[in-house]
Amino acid sequence: MILERNLKDLLDRHLAPSLVKRVLAEPSLVQLRGERRTITTLFVDAAGIGFTMEKLDPEQSVRYLNEYLEAVHQVILDHDGFMDKVVGDEIMAFWGAPLPSEQHAESACRTAVAIRKRLAELSDDFRRRGLDPVHAHIGVNTGEAIVGSFGPSDHPAYTPMGHAVNLGARLVSEARRNSVDIAVSEFTREALATRTQNPDEEFALKALLPIETLMRKEPVKVYAVTA
Amino acid sequence: MILERNLKDLLDRHLAPSLVKRVLAEPSLVQLRGERRTITTLFVDAAGIGFTMEKLDPEQSVRYLNEYLEAVHQVILDHDGFMDKVVGDEIMAFWGAPLPSEQHAESACRTAVAIRKRLAELSDDFRRRGLDPVHAHIGVNTGEAIVGSFGPSDHPAYTPMGHAVNLGARLVSEARRNSVDIAVSEFTREALATRTQNPDEEFALKALLPIETLMRKEPVKVYAVTA
Repeated sequence: MILERNLKDLLDRHLAPSLVKRVLAEPSLVQLRGERRTITTLFVDAAGIGFTMEKLDPEQSVRYLNEYLEAVHQVILDHDGFMDKVVGDEIMAFWGAPLPSEQHAESACRTAVAIRKRLAELSDDFRRRGLDPVHAHIGVNTGEAIVGSFGPSDHPAYTPMGHAVNLGARLVSEARRNSVDIAVSEFTREALATRTQNPDEEFALKALLPIETLMRKEPVKVYAVTA
Repeated sequence: MILERNLKDLLDRHLAPSLVKRVLAEPSLVQLRGERRTITTLFVDAAGIGFTMEKLDPEQSVRYLNEYLEAVHQVILDHDGFMDKVVGDEIMAFWGAPLPSEQHAESACRTAVAIRKRLAELSDDFRRRGLDPVHAHIGVNTGEAIVGSFGPSDHPAYTPMGHAVNLGARLVSEARRNSVDIAVSEFTREALATRTQNPDEEFALKALLPIETLMRKEPVKVYAVTA
């Protein structure tokens, strides 16, 4: 079946194998032609990793970045995330599609915290080997996106598109600008509140300065996850 | 042979089929573990396409974006470019690796001009069908990059990394900020000059304001391609 083959290609290596099986067992979950879904996106950007890479020889440089990417990738798959793409040293993942989830915001936030922990370990290891530690800024946002198979026909990718995704990417810059590790939007905080009694406490949320967006007139509230 | 299989997977759909064959016939061209190469990168960003997409229903929206991506993709492959990746509505391609090329800057600039022409035709077609025209900003930069197989081990991608690549992406913003279609750096202009007697005339280069970068102390000169 062509559709199933395509679907497997689109999912393989992006989702934990057990989840790929679940989706293939229920292919109607995935509307490749596009559908609106509420999802939570996570962006991870390695601060200054490019400067470290420039100091290394090309082969060391590739190995160094790949160790970092591999570590973050694994945390995302372990938390049932969809590993969307790697762009340079930036990683994008999402929750809430293709498998529906009631806890996409919570999963993404727990993943962000786990990535921070994993990178602290990795940095210790890097230091022991005489390499620079690696530090990342993480942005998490929740909202409606169009999810589907985007790209030229021989180059498709299952991915979300829309303002909510762009805002997720922007929250990485907000984290950087505020010198915090993880920044989430008020939309993610609201989604967390439907699941946990007190997200402010559980994730130790601290308000940062709100940001202006093209999405709506009122500024969007931004919080640091300090848990 | 595992290496050859991996190599084919890394190249397929990223290069014109005739070039994939040439690389596979001479696999030593590709140092997957990383090497320094001088390349020219091209970034294409569709201005405001997200706003058009939000007005359409999800399936129309996916089709609309995909028609645009398909058109640009085809121009890149027709010009022997390496179609690196699609990130939302942004497309990245490069010349000069894995196949060495004496004319990577020239090829990238000709591709930029051809993309502009192709999008004008596509926009006419979109208008006839009651859809918004599409307009893109393009950035082209030439410089040394580390090229290799980057990514988690089960998710590798043949791609260039480094300041020169980041500057290429930044030139898209410069094009947008200056309301021109195509912005190229002085490094690309220099590379053009090794091939054409008079690149300023051939590509109708017009100086824009120089930009500050982290790469070096002096500002980088930027030119609009108005040919």
